[in-house]
Amino acid sequence: MKIQIINGPNLNLLGTREPEIYGAEKFEAFMEKLTTDFPQVEFSYFQSNVEGEIINKLQEWGFSSDGILLNAGGYTHTSVAIGDAIAAISTAVIEVHISNPLARESFRHQSLIGPKCIGTISGFGLESYRLAVQALIYKKT
Amino acid sequence: MKIQIINGPNLNLLGTREPEIYGAEKFEAFMEKLTTDFPQVEFSYFQSNVEGEIINKLQEWGFSSDGILLNAGGYTHTSVAIGDAIAAISTAVIEVHISNPLARESFRHQSLIGPKCIGTISGFGLESYRLAVQALIYKKT
Amino acid sequence: MKIQIINGPNLNLLGTREPEIYGAEKFEAFMEKLTTDFPQVEFSYFQSNVEGEIINKLQEWGFSSDGILLNAGGYTHTSVAIGDAIAAISTAVIEVHISNPLARESFRHQSLIGPKCIGTISGFGLESYRLAVQALIYKKT
Amino acid sequence: MKIQIINGPNLNLLGTREPEIYGAEKFEAFMEKLTTDFPQVEFSYFQSNVEGEIINKLQEWGFSSDGILLNAGGYTHTSVAIGDAIAAISTAVIEVHISNPLARESFRHQSLIGPKCIGTISGFGLESYRLAVQALIYKKT
Amino acid sequence: MKIQIINGPNLNLLGTREPEIYGAEKFEAFMEKLTTDFPQVEFSYFQSNVEGEIINKLQEWGFSSDGILLNAGGYTHTSVAIGDAIAAISTAVIEVHISNPLARESFRHQSLIGPKCIGTISGFGLESYRLAVQALIYKKT
Amino acid sequence: MKIQIINGPNLNLLGTREPEIYGAEKFEAFMEKLTTDFPQVEFSYFQSNVEGEIINKLQEWGFSSDGILLNAGGYTHTSVAIGDAIAAISTAVIEVHISNPLARESFRHQSLIGPKCIGTISGFGLESYRLAVQALIYKKT
Amino acid sequence: MKIQIINGPNLNLLGTREPEIYGAEKFEAFMEKLTTDFPQVEFSYFQSNVEGEIINKLQEWGFSSDGILLNAGGYTHTSVAIGDAIAAISTAVIEVHISNPLARESFRHQSLIGPKCIGTISGFGLESYRLAVQALIYKKT
Amino acid sequence: MKIQIINGPNLNLLGTREPEIYGAEKFEAFMEKLTTDFPQVEFSYFQSNVEGEIINKLQEWGFSSDGILLNAGGYTHTSVAIGDAIAAISTAVIEVHISNPLARESFRHQSLIGPKCIGTISGFGLESYRLAVQALIYKKT
Amino acid sequence: MKIQIINGPNLNLLGTREPEIYGAEKFEAFMEKLTTDFPQVEFSYFQSNVEGEIINKLQEWGFSSDGILLNAGGYTHTSVAIGDAIAAISTAVIEVHISNPLARESFRHQSLIGPKCIGTISGFGLESYRLAVQALIYKKT
Amino acid sequence: MKIQIINGPNLNLLGTREPEIYGAEKFEAFMEKLTTDFPQVEFSYFQSNVEGEIINKLQEWGFSSDGILLNAGGYTHTSVAIGDAIAAISTAVIEVHISNPLARESFRHQSLIGPKCIGTISGFGLESYRLAVQALIYKKT
Amino acid sequence: MKIQIINGPNLNLLGTREPEIYGAEKFEAFMEKLTTDFPQVEFSYFQSNVEGEIINKLQEWGFSSDGILLNAGGYTHTSVAIGDAIAAISTAVIEVHISNPLARESFRHQSLIGPKCIGTISGFGLESYRLAVQALIYKKT
Amino acid sequence: MKIQIINGPNLNLLGTREPEIYGAEKFEAFMEKLTTDFPQVEFSYFQSNVEGEIINKLQEWGFSSDGILLNAGGYTHTSVAIGDAIAAISTAVIEVHISNPLARESFRHQSLIGPKCIGTISGFGLESYRLAVQALIYKKT
Repeated sequence: MKIQIINGPNLNLLGTREPEIYGAEKFEAFMEKLTTDFPQVEFSYFQSNVEGEIINKLQEWGFSSDGILLNAGGYTHTSVAIGDAIAAISTAVIEVHISNPLARESFRHQSLIGPKCIGTISGFGLESYRLAVQALIYKKT
Repeated sequence: MKIQIINGPNLNLLGTREPEIYGAEKFEAFMEKLTTDFPQVEFSYFQSNVEGEIINKLQEWGFSSDGILLNAGGYTHTSVAIGDAIAAISTAVIEVHISNPLARESFRHQSLIGPKCIGTISGFGLESYRLAVQALIYKKT
Repeated sequence: MKIQIINGPNLNLLGTREPEIYGAEKFEAFMEKLTTDFPQVEFSYFQSNVEGEIINKLQEWGFSSDGILLNAGGYTHTSVAIGDAIAAISTAVIEVHISNPLARESFRHQSLIGPKCIGTISGFGLESYRLAVQALIYKKT
Repeated sequence: MKIQIINGPNLNLLGTREPEIYGAEKFEAFMEKLTTDFPQVEFSYFQSNVEGEIINKLQEWGFSSDGILLNAGGYTHTSVAIGDAIAAISTAVIEVHISNPLARESFRHQSLIGPKCIGTISGFGLESYRLAVQALIYKKT
Repeated sequence: MKIQIINGPNLNLLGTREPEIYGAEKFEAFMEKLTTDFPQVEFSYFQSNVEGEIINKLQEWGFSSDGILLNAGGYTHTSVAIGDAIAAISTAVIEVHISNPLARESFRHQSLIGPKCIGTISGFGLESYRLAVQALIYKKT
Repeated sequence: MKIQIINGPNLNLLGTREPEIYGAEKFEAFMEKLTTDFPQVEFSYFQSNVEGEIINKLQEWGFSSDGILLNAGGYTHTSVAIGDAIAAISTAVIEVHISNPLARESFRHQSLIGPKCIGTISGFGLESYRLAVQALIYKKT
Repeated sequence: MKIQIINGPNLNLLGTREPEIYGAEKFEAFMEKLTTDFPQVEFSYFQSNVEGEIINKLQEWGFSSDGILLNAGGYTHTSVAIGDAIAAISTAVIEVHISNPLARESFRHQSLIGPKCIGTISGFGLESYRLAVQALIYKKT
Repeated sequence: MKIQIINGPNLNLLGTREPEIYGAEKFEAFMEKLTTDFPQVEFSYFQSNVEGEIINKLQEWGFSSDGILLNAGGYTHTSVAIGDAIAAISTAVIEVHISNPLARESFRHQSLIGPKCIGTISGFGLESYRLAVQALIYKKT
Repeated sequence: MKIQIINGPNLNLLGTREPEIYGAEKFEAFMEKLTTDFPQVEFSYFQSNVEGEIINKLQEWGFSSDGILLNAGGYTHTSVAIGDAIAAISTAVIEVHISNPLARESFRHQSLIGPKCIGTISGFGLESYRLAVQALIYKKT
Repeated sequence: MKIQIINGPNLNLLGTREPEIYGAEKFEAFMEKLTTDFPQVEFSYFQSNVEGEIINKLQEWGFSSDGILLNAGGYTHTSVAIGDAIAAISTAVIEVHISNPLARESFRHQSLIGPKCIGTISGFGLESYRLAVQALIYKKT
Repeated sequence: MKIQIINGPNLNLLGTREPEIYGAEKFEAFMEKLTTDFPQVEFSYFQSNVEGEIINKLQEWGFSSDGILLNAGGYTHTSVAIGDAIAAISTAVIEVHISNPLARESFRHQSLIGPKCIGTISGFGLESYRLAVQALIYKKT
Repeated sequence: MKIQIINGPNLNLLGTREPEIYGAEKFEAFMEKLTTDFPQVEFSYFQSNVEGEIINKLQEWGFSSDGILLNAGGYTHTSVAIGDAIAAISTAVIEVHISNPLARESFRHQSLIGPKCIGTISGFGLESYRLAVQALIYKKT
């Protein structure tokens, strides 16, 4: 089973950036745990601060994957184009957030990406990703 | 480990009501599977169409539980009082939805409950509940 | 032919409450006239100030009735959950109002219930109910 | 008893125009049935696509009629001037719609005419007109 | 002189719930002090988390009381139906709040109940109730 | 000196329509007084309930007149097209109102015509027209 | 091939009206060129300042034409009824504008007509019409 | 006959300030002409840049004058308190503007003062004041 | 104990101004009663129509008083600067209103001052001040 | 004559992506036809999913081209920066859309790019590009 | 070179008022440093809590100064009249803020004064003033 | 002392692009002057039209610099992601603009970046950058 994870802007700073909101763990360390815990899944990982490169990757992976986990960071609230990309591909995409956007600034309450995703998991720290993997496994079985 | 599930208005009709949105499975059947799959969890279940009874139950369970799964249905978008109840209790509450509210009518895009919950899981059918149970287990361990 | 009438909050005060808006007749007296005038119809009547009990009754009657007349009073403008209940049942529901909400305060101009009903009759005093009964009879014949 | 019916823009296309919304019956055929069913009523009928001609007719009929049924079509949502005409005449006007505007596009949710009418009947197909006639008869007796 | 106090949702948790906002005193203890301090007043007290039960109680007390103190909690901001109930009864109602809603979240800045009350007292902790009793005494004399 | 007066919808009912707002004098009687009081002015008068006919008249008179007084009635608040006509002609147009629209319903607070006129005179009953004539005379001298 | 052109309010002033926006050519002169350039097309032309007459013409032509070019002028932004007429007829309608409404006042940024048309061409002066004719020819072949 | 003129902020700069909008004449020079042209009127004049001093003057003059001309300048759009003062006094107040606020920035389109005045005259340069004097004379006779 | 009362614009007209809203008693007469009823309190009183003078007085009294009662009149709804002054001083300020602003025009529903005050008392006529004095006494004891 | 075509995000998926909206033809195939049909034009083509690269290309081509066709896809509705780039270059830019954005989701109704373009052509499938080429040719001749 | 500094409401409390936002230094002490650091500049200083006095001073200094530094405090967000004064004078005005209004309450995000100033400097504590002086010197040289 | 300057989209066209707004000087020429005038500062410079590359650079420089000057151009008003990057790094960032955005189109009045910066300097042409450098020097000393 092939699952891709795409992280958007500033998520490369995880562990460094505002740890009271995002936690102190680096994403690379978490990826290793994920790989160990789900040996039946072949993971790919991509991070970019560039909106268009996220679209490129969604298009590249979006016709052969069993599911994509997308944490679009700040683009969640402003990108019609990423939403269009999700609608244009055939793979199911899950919107993932580390923190709970509803409990933060009001400009984070709107998601332009969520309406095109099959579901949303937010607020559980890095475990949000693990739950999304679990969701794809449930969906397949 | 004790986990409570609270379902709000019209969720007693699951399996009957608009199956193209909510699926054809009854919640009772799903509860049995959940109990089997998580033997380490002691589940309680409550459903009501009355906003105030949901508040009563949140208050009753909210100081001794390991976590509450709340699908407040239509009250999600209109109830300041349920949001206040979540803030008033000590147990962590997870907002759960069967469908993806962001992909439906615009009055379902706002949640007055979400900002008081630790996280949200929506869009995975009844599996949304299972993922929320999983989230509480991850959180404890 | 079976028709149910559901009245929402404060409609039990009819005849007492603001008679310049709602008229001086009690609903019970009107119900008798209705029963006399439409002998071919078997009427049931329910009034509650509790939003959730209105939902309970809609669910109870909503699969075996020939039509429901719903005057949801103040919940007309705030209840997503009653609107969901109407969508979830199979019986046709008609939105009924004694006064003309459009000629009153602006918060009465929006109906969250109307979009789920087959039609609306408002502004004719208690005769609004009689017209709604007539509408169901027309519809059947 | 004298009752006038005024139909606004595009209602001359009834039976032709979007039959899944407006039905397949022509208004002329329906008028005949109405005349037969209410022999005690003398009906007049007027249709125009021109906003100002509707105002002309409201002024002409508005001081000698027992009631006017007005389906202002698309002008319902944009015409302050028709609303002013209704306020300026002495005859009671009932707002009538074939479909349920609340269940259609959001720009049909606002009525500039309704606040000046004694009541509204919408959603019952052409029977909406028959119910409005009935309402005027109830009102007189 | 007869005065009723009605507390809405979550106010049964006073003393427990967010004491930095609502204080540490239980309402029952405060009621005793109130009874002692105003021997000329016969107090009744009612608390409910259910919107409709608050309406029931307003109707029950609303024609024989010398004044009602209403802290509608979270329903303050969402209930057209409670506002209707206040308009429908003859007793004067005072809106009371423990904290100052204007200094909290923006969804607490609007009151659907206040426009129907004779006045508002908010921000003085439990003393808000005592001041409201005082206001009713001033009003009578 | 040539001055035209154009009155919009429902102003033909002056003297009949809501006299507490618009006064009891008919416009024709007022026109006679105006003609007597300003012998140096050659007046023309036009009234129509049809938006497009008002535009026709503005175009017809708008290149040879010394000034046009326009009371567009209900079209004041909804007509982009009349505003365009005023911009398209060379004659100065003055917006005139009998009552003070700012003291009436909120949908009368916006004027789509005013920004294209040289000025506005409102609230002085029929004397608003006389003042506007005066304004054109001042402007010429 | 039969193509109709309908021009709305104030477009009869082309060549006279604000030439810095609309150009100095009269529409009649342009029509001649169009007829010469597209000999395979039989053109009809209609201009009116009256909203309802535009609807009349859309209905008259809307079932036998190969395409209609509609420049509704100021009614573009305010007419639900013209939009309804376009939806009611079977002929494809193209929205045409001489200037670019997006580069002008904000009340010209919304089109109530565009959503019912197959497409929009705006900003190319009178050539916008020529391009629309071209579009209908492409569409047919 | 006694008429007062009150000018608000920056109107002391007339003749100096943005002459393309406000003209090149000083208000004092204009006052002299006014005094000559209306010998039957006893004029008083007051200018202040201070909102509260305008209120003071309205209160001082507001019970003994035959009419007040108020050009509140920038306070027109922001002062609830001046509006309250106009409502509190017994003298009729006319809102006067030199330029046409509707043809300027959008924050000048709203008047908080207009709804409390008997009428508005705007756009005629300093002649707006003369017309307002005329309006008061018409009103008295 | 030292308590200051600050009244804003137009409150010097109490007894004269719109008595159906504000009552017929002059504030000076009420002050005398207040002084008699609370002999333990040393009162100071200040009224001004000038926004900045209210700020001056708040700064002067705001570091040595036991409490300030502020009825800012029309400035309640428009003054960021008075709100800033309240935040800048150390004395507790109570927002007081004679009438219930929520039951009046919509522009009176927003208070820019309330969020900086410890509480609000409104709707009890001049007794609102007495209750506020009482509130400060409760607070001290 | 040199014309450039710039396509924005997801337009590289044409033929694959939602063919019921965007058609089944690949853009490359269409480009060939275009080249054949307009032999007098030298075409260049660029597609990117990256907002900034579209700006780069606009700057590169924007001083030497005879015209640019820009379909900015999802960036149409969110990019101030692309709008700035169009304003900064000297070449005329035409906004092109395959579908009619006005007939789709409401977030597609606003264009931040349109106000800086000379015109818009939308709704004609890939023929929209051909018409835009035609428009540039008309403009030159 | 002559530069004036005008400080608005509550800025006389600098050093006392909310030092965590505004710092602990008094403005007078800072003025001395400024005078020392820029010996080539002749400074004048004015502070007032009264909106109209700020306008008076802007008018007094606004025709003979080399530049004015204006920190309008709370009036920044509400004063059309101060904005008008800046537009009416010939001297360049710079908007200065000690804190960063964008990082504070949302009602501080709008400036009615900024659009009339040549520039804005905010967020640098009292150094904001020094930078504004520097800006005027750069501008002159 | 190390200071970085980051310029966003279209700022590479300085000197070419709309010189009446942005001036005629190229940024490279200005950089040289800056380097000469502040010999104690080591400057780095980066310009990109790509939103994500600006984020990359902010992250690269944001932990070792003494301050960053950011002119985000059109991204100022639309980029949540750049705002997040500023919050995620430790270096102080100053928002810089050449022109005064408040005096331009309304979509330039909102800054999503400003709330995360320590301050803003706008409107002084290229001297805005020099003042920002000065601000960082003041801050350090």
